[in-house]
Amino acid sequence: MEKRFEISLLFDFYGELLTEKQRDIMDLYFNNDLSLSEIAEINNTSRQATHDTIKRCEKMLLVYEEKLKLLDKNHKLIETLKNVISELDNLQINIKDEKMNQLIYDIKNQIIENI
Amino acid sequence: MEKRFEISLLFDFYGELLTEKQRDIMDLYFNNDLSLSEIAEINNTSRQATHDTIKRCEKMLLVYEEKLKLLDKNHKLIETLKNVISELDNLQINIKDEKMNQLIYDIKNQIIENI
Repeated sequence: MEKRFEISLLFDFYGELLTEKQRDIMDLYFNNDLSLSEIAEINNTSRQATHDTIKRCEKMLLVYEEKLKLLDKNHKLIETLKNVISELDNLQINIKDEKMNQLIYDIKNQIIENI
Repeated sequence: MEKRFEISLLFDFYGELLTEKQRDIMDLYFNNDLSLSEIAEINNTSRQATHDTIKRCEKMLLVYEEKLKLLDKNHKLIETLKNVISELDNLQINIKDEKMNQLIYDIKNQIIENI
């Protein structure tokens, strides 16, 4: 996985464990795509200090993932559920009964809401 | 949910975020059902210090849940997947084709492995 994308995903999972200040900086950098200089200006600090904060936060997020493995577990679960949906699609192709088809459709929707 | 049971579940989710020492004490108390005095003796400390450590860890686990809501999200997901399985059971009752029944059986198994 591309590093920046991975950090952005980890931030979605563990962002709440950072301080509000750290979260703001990470949000501006990863979600709003601002440059280090732009973020430094907003926070009235230096480009280097902003860079250090982001690197420190990245390390923290990676440590949280090493300990809790949420991203990894979530990825595996989504793969399984996608597979289940594709098998339900196969099932639907072979079922002509309207009521049963509707039931499978509902089951798929319930799963999709959790992906 | 009963408090002790809730803490025990939270410990399963967030235990890795505690220190090894804290984890050992929580494990003896919640998983091995030792008394405060017994744990104190093992760690060569006082009953009061053991009690304080457990209370402090409980607070930390509750804060992690407040921030990440893993237990809550996991509970909701399991409820949905249980519901999906029960609907697949209903579907199976109405399907006589052996191959399709096997397919539903496989789908259910994939889901059960994730519960």
